[in-house]
Amino acid sequence: MNSPNVAPVVGMVGAGQLARMTQQAAIALGIELRVLANSPDESAARVITQTVLGDYRDLDDLRAFAAGCDAVTFDHEHVPGEHIRALTEAGVVVHPGADALIYAQDKAVMRGRLTDIGVPCPAWAPVDSLSDVEGFAKENGWPVVLKAVRGGYDGRGVWVVGSPDAAAEVLKNGVELLAEAFVPFERELAVLVARSPHGQGVSYPVVETVQEDSICVEVIAPAPDLDAEDAAQAQKIALTIANELGVTGLLAVEMFQTKTGLMVNELAMRPHNSGHWTIEGARTSQFEQHLRAVLNLPLGSPTMTAPVVVMANLLGGPDPDIFRRYEHVLAHDPGIKLHFYGKEVRPGRKIGHVTALGTDLAEVRARAQHAVTCLRGPV
Amino acid sequence: MNSPNVAPVVGMVGAGQLARMTQQAAIALGIELRVLANSPDESAARVITQTVLGDYRDLDDLRAFAAGCDAVTFDHEHVPGEHIRALTEAGVVVHPGADALIYAQDKAVMRGRLTDIGVPCPAWAPVDSLSDVEGFAKENGWPVVLKAVRGGYDGRGVWVVGSPDAAAEVLKNGVELLAEAFVPFERELAVLVARSPHGQGVSYPVVETVQEDSICVEVIAPAPDLDAEDAAQAQKIALTIANELGVTGLLAVEMFQTKTGLMVNELAMRPHNSGHWTIEGARTSQFEQHLRAVLNLPLGSPTMTAPVVVMANLLGGPDPDIFRRYEHVLAHDPGIKLHFYGKEVRPGRKIGHVTALGTDLAEVRARAQHAVTCLRGPV
Repeated sequence: MNSPNVAPVVGMVGAGQLARMTQQAAIALGIELRVLANSPDESAARVITQTVLGDYRDLDDLRAFAAGCDAVTFDHEHVPGEHIRALTEAGVVVHPGADALIYAQDKAVMRGRLTDIGVPCPAWAPVDSLSDVEGFAKENGWPVVLKAVRGGYDGRGVWVVGSPDAAAEVLKNGVELLAEAFVPFERELAVLVARSPHGQGVSYPVVETVQEDSICVEVIAPAPDLDAEDAAQAQKIALTIANELGVTGLLAVEMFQTKTGLMVNELAMRPHNSGHWTIEGARTSQFEQHLRAVLNLPLGSPTMTAPVVVMANLLGGPDPDIFRRYEHVLAHDPGIKLHFYGKEVRPGRKIGHVTALGTDLAEVRARAQHAVTCLRGPV
Repeated sequence: MNSPNVAPVVGMVGAGQLARMTQQAAIALGIELRVLANSPDESAARVITQTVLGDYRDLDDLRAFAAGCDAVTFDHEHVPGEHIRALTEAGVVVHPGADALIYAQDKAVMRGRLTDIGVPCPAWAPVDSLSDVEGFAKENGWPVVLKAVRGGYDGRGVWVVGSPDAAAEVLKNGVELLAEAFVPFERELAVLVARSPHGQGVSYPVVETVQEDSICVEVIAPAPDLDAEDAAQAQKIALTIANELGVTGLLAVEMFQTKTGLMVNELAMRPHNSGHWTIEGARTSQFEQHLRAVLNLPLGSPTMTAPVVVMANLLGGPDPDIFRRYEHVLAHDPGIKLHFYGKEVRPGRKIGHVTALGTDLAEVRARAQHAVTCLRGPV
């Protein structure tokens, strides 16, 4: 920060859009952000001069990448725990650590721990045979939600099965599975919190997330008509998890709101799609917050900058020429904020997002929807 | 934007902090920003993968840099007009063009044109001898403001002289000079406007700028207690200048507020220090606005995001270890926004800025002042 070569250096393993947006925050803070990328074409690699090419599954690549970093963190959860432990033993500062990250990597370990600490979860059990699934269904009813214990995201690795036959099909994949009771939720909520190594915690307002085909398409901040007690409980659950699990950096907690209360669905320990609205919508963006947390700097204010903020994901459509439609969207709404990830357009792929801010929920949602509908183009 | 290799490409000549902050906006918009830098250590070169090293005074370097750019623009005003004309003749899209930029490059040409179009300016005259200066002083009184016609910035190239002897000293420099009447202003204001090639214009709110030793140290948005008529007139002057001079991109107009009305002091045709507050303080930052304007995209909303926004420049002090003081500043004020330019710390050098947002002017100013005072360290 003083002479430029002593600026703090943060290494982020992975070079997707999360690392890309982290770079915007790093530029302001004067932090040197390095990424470990698979290819120079990746979203973040396009905008980060300190891009290192390598394999996050290879300990030597990780060691070389970590050299000179004040802190190492992640834009995904796929780095093997034993590698993180090896880095830590070699003196590298890694946030979150392996003992925390395991709960975002292994859903069985996560469910076991959350149950132990009294966090409400759907009924669950590990299953490795059809009779296990049938036994679980006997107790909890069909449909049953089968989840890959490791490696799933954006709906991949999650199957809602309504019968033994459907369950048998999933079992054929040969991946380790967990069964969960199907929760008839009213809506989905998410809480994003940050926790720094010395234990400071901050919670963003509770948001509502809207999924289509298991992919998040819209995030509304704050969650509309959420009563203050539920909001406080949701934030308490998220902060409790962060503390109990020793999370450092960001923790996103996805929840179901049901007639009988809140239940935790999933955890992520990194900047999260449910927090993209914070770039314009909160005094401290989740990306800045994550950098501050992993460097053990004081955390920033999570206060909202407008009464209503809506983020809508931009999924690719069949026509890749988004820029042709860009002009219309900007002309239509001078206040809309566009975010493109520099990714090749493929149908259904998350290639960007838009954020609208204002005071009237219906109007703000309509603006965000208009923008992504136009940008996606004919379907 | 669609397949990443057809993202719009903007080339910015110069790699200072203005280009660096433009990169933050380019990342969001999915625009590929290239810079022409003197050295890989420059502020923007550190955070832009598409950095080209070269000399902005060399036409061949400029031609090579411009190849493949959808638009070329500038982070400073020092590119010779004949080079810009040569680029334009070769089919390069350059904003602002040479015919506009001359008014930001040559103060005599600027004063002549503004006088012609009826924009209020201080009394002025070209001077090239002591008798010229004495003649000017006879009519307008001492002190006289002598300005280098070309090449000055941040107070360099401006001398306030109270006597013939002092004027003689300045004349010894041998640079082409302009004399201006010393204006007993009440305060300094600035108006930032954007104009796109097809003529769309947008004005940000009028701000007050506070100078110390001819360097801007603080910007207050909106200018406190400015009556609506003066604000409207200031914006009208700036938009008129942008239109009359054919400016494309941003135009910053620095003005004096005097007992008898507004007078134009200086022009800049690029993102400007008086607009750094817009990063958090306006719906569209000046950096995003400039990119939109030079690509002939619809301009964004200049609406403020908070009632009061104060930007304070961070000047280097004798102790370069800013990062050590960073923690205190962030802990003291979780809502303060820090911006570091990745430059080596030297006493008096602009190395960053801070922005505070809120509702109470005195409180917001105090927060910004506290942050820069702490970060600068012992003086």
